[in-house]
Amino acid sequence: MHIIHGRARRGNIYVCEASGPCLLRHTGTDDALERAAIEAASAIGAGHVFVVMLGNAFPVNVLNQLKSVTEVCTIFCATANPLRVIVVEDGDGRGVVGVIDGSSPKGVEDEHARIDRHAMLRRFGYKQ
Amino acid sequence: MHIIHGRARRGNIYVCEASGPCLLRHTGTDDALERAAIEAASAIGAGHVFVVMLGNAFPVNVLNQLKSVTEVCTIFCATANPLRVIVVEDGDGRGVVGVIDGSSPKGVEDEHARIDRHAMLRRFGYKQ
Amino acid sequence: MHIIHGRARRGNIYVCEASGPCLLRHTGTDDALERAAIEAASAIGAGHVFVVMLGNAFPVNVLNQLKSVTEVCTIFCATANPLRVIVVEDGDGRGVVGVIDGSSPKGVEDEHARIDRHAMLRRFGYKQ
Repeated sequence: MHIIHGRARRGNIYVCEASGPCLLRHTGTDDALERAAIEAASAIGAGHVFVVMLGNAFPVNVLNQLKSVTEVCTIFCATANPLRVIVVEDGDGRGVVGVIDGSSPKGVEDEHARIDRHAMLRRFGYKQ
Repeated sequence: MHIIHGRARRGNIYVCEASGPCLLRHTGTDDALERAAIEAASAIGAGHVFVVMLGNAFPVNVLNQLKSVTEVCTIFCATANPLRVIVVEDGDGRGVVGVIDGSSPKGVEDEHARIDRHAMLRRFGYKQ
Repeated sequence: MHIIHGRARRGNIYVCEASGPCLLRHTGTDDALERAAIEAASAIGAGHVFVVMLGNAFPVNVLNQLKSVTEVCTIFCATANPLRVIVVEDGDGRGVVGVIDGSSPKGVEDEHARIDRHAMLRRFGYKQ
């Protein structure tokens, strides 16, 4: 079992795919981010996995659209946190089994933290 | 790799979230179930994971709605069975890689069991 | 941790389910494929997991419909590749934690491979 560390970066939308012909397929509109997506998908090194690097956008802006793509089975994460991808290797193949997304919880929200959260969500326009 | 055991409990709907500020965010309408959800999410201890404790409702009543929430990537299970959550830990982070939901199959359905199943589904109103 | 090898086969649609009463529930219209689905689900041996064997159809023809089934949490893969299913066992239960779908990428697409891909997608009717 391998743990691959990475960090999401800002930019436009990029996709890398590792499929049947065993090439990392890639497209994008920003060279640096396209390279970052290729690097992440290469590090993962699993078949039928894709990486999207987002910039000037939040995952919530595209997540439901990605989930409804007819070639997409599942989405492991959508995050701006440092990310570790858990990969299992067997023979000439590798598969993602999960991710470690950011840090473990450090405590339970109390009333003060709840008020702060509601204020933050209102500031973001998430809550009325 | 850790295996965390638990059991779903009946009640209303509760959500615990472990996100960026590393607090378990929680809300609910029943104290006992809210505590159970906090306890489950604390035991899992992974970032960007949520727990919903359902009462007087079945997962099928809410699963598609949860899947279509724009912040939700994937759902690991929806069950009333005893549940074991498989967690990988690395540094200060943890991630869920899967679940063991109930028991392994003990056999293959035969014609008699198939008739029983159809009768049960008709009783539940699942099948005409 | 177990790694179960298998290969998708052609045919009509088949479903095996391993649920509460711990029987592999199955249905289908082709005996050989129904047996293949039972064999795959038995080898996986996990609760609340299903296997669909497709014939004369592609996963993209049914994937979004399967994702929107109200009893379905997640789909691990949709593939014609040789498939390895990663299973964790604990006590009397087993759970799928991921899959190894085909082979790892062997390189990064260059301009020549990109032109070939676009030609292939146009041939399939995927791209104008």
